[in-house]
Amino acid sequence: MQSTTRVALDAMGGDNAPAEVVKGAVDAVNKRNDIKIFLVGQKVPVERELSLYTYPKEQIEIVDAPEVIEMAEPPVMAIRRKKQSSIVVGMNMVKNKEADAFVSAGSSGAVLVGGQVIVGRIKGIQRPPLAPLIPTERGVSLLIDCGANVDARAEHLVQFAKMGSIYMEHVVGVKNPKVALVNIGAEEEKGNALVKETMPLLRECTDINFVGSIEARDIPKGDADVIVCEAFTGNVILKLYEGLSSTLIGVIKKGLMSTLKSKIGAALALPALKNTLKSFDATEYGGAPLLGLNGLVVKTHGSSKAKEITNSVFQCVTFKEKEINDKIKEYIINKPAD
Amino acid sequence: MQSTTRVALDAMGGDNAPAEVVKGAVDAVNKRNDIKIFLVGQKVPVERELSLYTYPKEQIEIVDAPEVIEMAEPPVMAIRRKKQSSIVVGMNMVKNKEADAFVSAGSSGAVLVGGQVIVGRIKGIQRPPLAPLIPTERGVSLLIDCGANVDARAEHLVQFAKMGSIYMEHVVGVKNPKVALVNIGAEEEKGNALVKETMPLLRECTDINFVGSIEARDIPKGDADVIVCEAFTGNVILKLYEGLSSTLIGVIKKGLMSTLKSKIGAALALPALKNTLKSFDATEYGGAPLLGLNGLVVKTHGSSKAKEITNSVFQCVTFKEKEINDKIKEYIINKPAD
Repeated sequence: MQSTTRVALDAMGGDNAPAEVVKGAVDAVNKRNDIKIFLVGQKVPVERELSLYTYPKEQIEIVDAPEVIEMAEPPVMAIRRKKQSSIVVGMNMVKNKEADAFVSAGSSGAVLVGGQVIVGRIKGIQRPPLAPLIPTERGVSLLIDCGANVDARAEHLVQFAKMGSIYMEHVVGVKNPKVALVNIGAEEEKGNALVKETMPLLRECTDINFVGSIEARDIPKGDADVIVCEAFTGNVILKLYEGLSSTLIGVIKKGLMSTLKSKIGAALALPALKNTLKSFDATEYGGAPLLGLNGLVVKTHGSSKAKEITNSVFQCVTFKEKEINDKIKEYIINKPAD
Repeated sequence: MQSTTRVALDAMGGDNAPAEVVKGAVDAVNKRNDIKIFLVGQKVPVERELSLYTYPKEQIEIVDAPEVIEMAEPPVMAIRRKKQSSIVVGMNMVKNKEADAFVSAGSSGAVLVGGQVIVGRIKGIQRPPLAPLIPTERGVSLLIDCGANVDARAEHLVQFAKMGSIYMEHVVGVKNPKVALVNIGAEEEKGNALVKETMPLLRECTDINFVGSIEARDIPKGDADVIVCEAFTGNVILKLYEGLSSTLIGVIKKGLMSTLKSKIGAALALPALKNTLKSFDATEYGGAPLLGLNGLVVKTHGSSKAKEITNSVFQCVTFKEKEINDKIKEYIINKPAD
């Protein structure tokens, strides 16, 4: 018998909810029959959206969650008080094994807090890292941790390296992924106190393909598949990636529109250019998993459209099929945490 | 009487030394007569390069320095052992008040160590930060510190903010520059331990225009003029800026060359495009000053061409004319460090 992956989807999360979330859910079940989606959110608007589409009815179910956590709300407070919010209801479904995964484009803070407090960590995992994929010249790399655990310690980074390696190999499909630690120089003696403490611990790991330091300038080249760093650094990398890409593309557009000759040139070049720039877009791969939890929690961009939602649902299927959490547990048993 | 700025120039530093350094020096003295340049390096090759040009002889002098510090040498050891290297000889000229400034495209590590050990800090300055200018949509911002002092403390960051503000206002010419602290969210409660400790200290500073947090995604927009951060973060920002710009421009070029139609379009658009991208280039402003020293030390890119060298020399003139170090000393007297 084919196994079904059950995904609880935050129908109220993100700038384009519920419309794009519902569309993403419909597209997912219209493409695969091994998925069951729970649209968690305010029943009336979700139902209205859903009524616009044709899809196998048994594959989508609405779970009412009348409350909404706003982006600006302090996360800990929101999770504690809004028991009927889509995030809390959806995460409780994962906790109670009614769903295998929870996907949300809503408040990052609330998703991170909820993941830890409601879904809970795998025994032995000290900190669950958030691990988005970032585009590179060669494809994508996993950036781990990009904002879940500021001021993490060396032993946490070692767990990140291992979990990132498992994810990259089995979900993204990169064989024997190269793992590197973000540093400010290639030389062994460079780095801050955390890097100097982490480096020898990673060198000792025989179960990952650790390749040493990576300087930020080499990340876009795709020199490593798993980019390990502390959350503050990771968040700076992720946000600068987004900001600088958008600024540079803006500067280039301005250049292309600056003269009559260049405008004609731009009209001719644009289709090919758009095609290449699309390859530099990580949303194809779904959202950022919060790893090391009893279940899967995936955070997608706040600006997610249907396509990213659909891909995030498929990502949950792969995560389940490849038994990622069993692999993480095996690693923890073989290498107990301090 | 017009005052002369005396600049010791590392004729052996960088990928294009001595040719581009010598050319940069010649261009500088041919443009301004209030500059005296000491070309510090191996006499024979420097003399040979210099003999190719016409310039006012009294404005350039060669200072022999037979040793060369290589890029890969451990900096502390190199500074200690190679007393006859261009970096050590040039920095000693600043220390002995024979030169006002030292400019080098050589080993960053050696320049940072030499600045601290040979030139020395202004009394009261705890850590001298390296502060490059980075391009933004609106012009440039000063990134301080970008690699000199990893694991700096909150009180160091406060000094960086003040020195950066003085530099940006008086050397770059931005009135009442906006100062921001790099953070991973706009909310007050976000950040790591260092940010949480630094934020209230910066809020108390009445002598700078502190605007609060800046997320990395907003740096390229030019939302702040002085970007304050710890050196590890700053180095990651600087290097990612370089790497991502180069990758994206490569991806775009590939797109433009991918079809016949786009190739024709590219040929038409390229001149205008190049012009706009040039505005996104900070080398126009010279190199990165190492601030808070008894004199000025400027680190230029290892790949510096004559133009960046010339601009760095002019930057030294402005630094002296605007009495930046006197302004830093005044600040220290009024706000004694812990």
